[in-house]
Amino acid sequence: MKYYKLTISYNGKNYSGWQIQKNANTIQEEMMNAGHKFMKDEFTITGASRTDSGVHALGQVAVLATNTVLETGRIPLAFNAHLPKDIVVWKIEEVNEDFHPRYQNVRKKYRYKIYNNAYPIPQYLHYALYYYKPLDIEKMKEGIMYLIGTHDFLGFTSSKNTLEDTVRTIYDAKIDVKEQEISIEVEGDGFLYNMVRIIAGTLLDIGCNRKKPEVIQQMIKEKDRSLGGKTAPAHGLTLVSIDYTVDKL
Amino acid sequence: MKYYKLTISYNGKNYSGWQIQKNANTIQEEMMNAGHKFMKDEFTITGASRTDSGVHALGQVAVLATNTVLETGRIPLAFNAHLPKDIVVWKIEEVNEDFHPRYQNVRKKYRYKIYNNAYPIPQYLHYALYYYKPLDIEKMKEGIMYLIGTHDFLGFTSSKNTLEDTVRTIYDAKIDVKEQEISIEVEGDGFLYNMVRIIAGTLLDIGCNRKKPEVIQQMIKEKDRSLGGKTAPAHGLTLVSIDYTVDKL
Repeated sequence: MKYYKLTISYNGKNYSGWQIQKNANTIQEEMMNAGHKFMKDEFTITGASRTDSGVHALGQVAVLATNTVLETGRIPLAFNAHLPKDIVVWKIEEVNEDFHPRYQNVRKKYRYKIYNNAYPIPQYLHYALYYYKPLDIEKMKEGIMYLIGTHDFLGFTSSKNTLEDTVRTIYDAKIDVKEQEISIEVEGDGFLYNMVRIIAGTLLDIGCNRKKPEVIQQMIKEKDRSLGGKTAPAHGLTLVSIDYTVDKL
Repeated sequence: MKYYKLTISYNGKNYSGWQIQKNANTIQEEMMNAGHKFMKDEFTITGASRTDSGVHALGQVAVLATNTVLETGRIPLAFNAHLPKDIVVWKIEEVNEDFHPRYQNVRKKYRYKIYNNAYPIPQYLHYALYYYKPLDIEKMKEGIMYLIGTHDFLGFTSSKNTLEDTVRTIYDAKIDVKEQEISIEVEGDGFLYNMVRIIAGTLLDIGCNRKKPEVIQQMIKEKDRSLGGKTAPAHGLTLVSIDYTVDKL
């Protein structure tokens, strides 16, 4: 059996997230369907992140384990020939059997985009949440700094969270502004269910002065989800990259 | 009767261009339908550019002539409340009766985007043509310069062109590259049917060394469409802006 690390981009709009589920269209299922078109033997495809319904990816990672003999360089082409246009495999590397996309030290990077303008110009809304009132960027920058470090992020997950260990390390968190586009970028060793969308929703509340920047610190300290803003909608969120070359801090 | 200059953005993907036609979904028709929801008296909406089927706009201009008494600032909001999400009115100015969006001196700006990468990452394809082989940007820059000036552009229009006067002035023409995105930008006093898409298709041929940069000069001189490249697909093209403040050169 051979193992390949695939890097995948997708527009999550028409999918119920990565993970295969009954009665739902998912990225993993599309990958399996495409794989069956050119691999006769059994194979598995294991994703690194279970992106939620509607969430996008520029650099999702998945491991293909297959018995079919294939030319490495041709595998992305074979997938892309059978995948819908909104999913693309754009990188491949052969890996060892012990490489598991979820049980490794990683640095994951997510980006949440807000298009902040008086009018919701259609060109900017494919991967961004539209918000019409001018946001106070300095306040948002103040708030996001509290995320950096190793904290228990129980206050930043939904009641659907099933993980016992809610401690995560955020390596970097920042806000970039380019004209009307505001990008919230967070990098960490992992994220809880809905965590980045709760961060984005809370920063949005900070930006329009409904909450103070210190609320982020409070949510961490008191582990209280109810102090934060709404969970921001999925379509503003993109899984940017997953870096496996990092050492655990 | 009052006259208003509206500035409109749209994603042209789902429309057969601006101009109302039988059995086709057009931007102008959507604008009329939306207007009928809040204006009881008769009104007209006249566009500045008849963008082709599938072509996008950031700054299309149209004049609304109406007898209904309206508060100027509320008109964009009223349109947007009734328009589909892929069409947005984002600016309004009251104008005189003699302002006609097509019979004025203007500076129109079009942008044709090419996403030039080994793989067609879905995030970059909404408003760009995908091309996989690396393009020779310097050659494209050389070619595009020949467009600048006042020329007979008969060689840059399709056989469907019905205009007798095919002389146009190109004020500026340039190529901008940002990572894998190549933007072809042309500004002029007007453009013939398919002209920017023929320019883009010819530049694409120059970029992959199927044609020499001088072919643009030849097409102008010999008024020969057949010397150029294919008409590039509509979805890469955006009408960026129409400036009415310019003096005729």
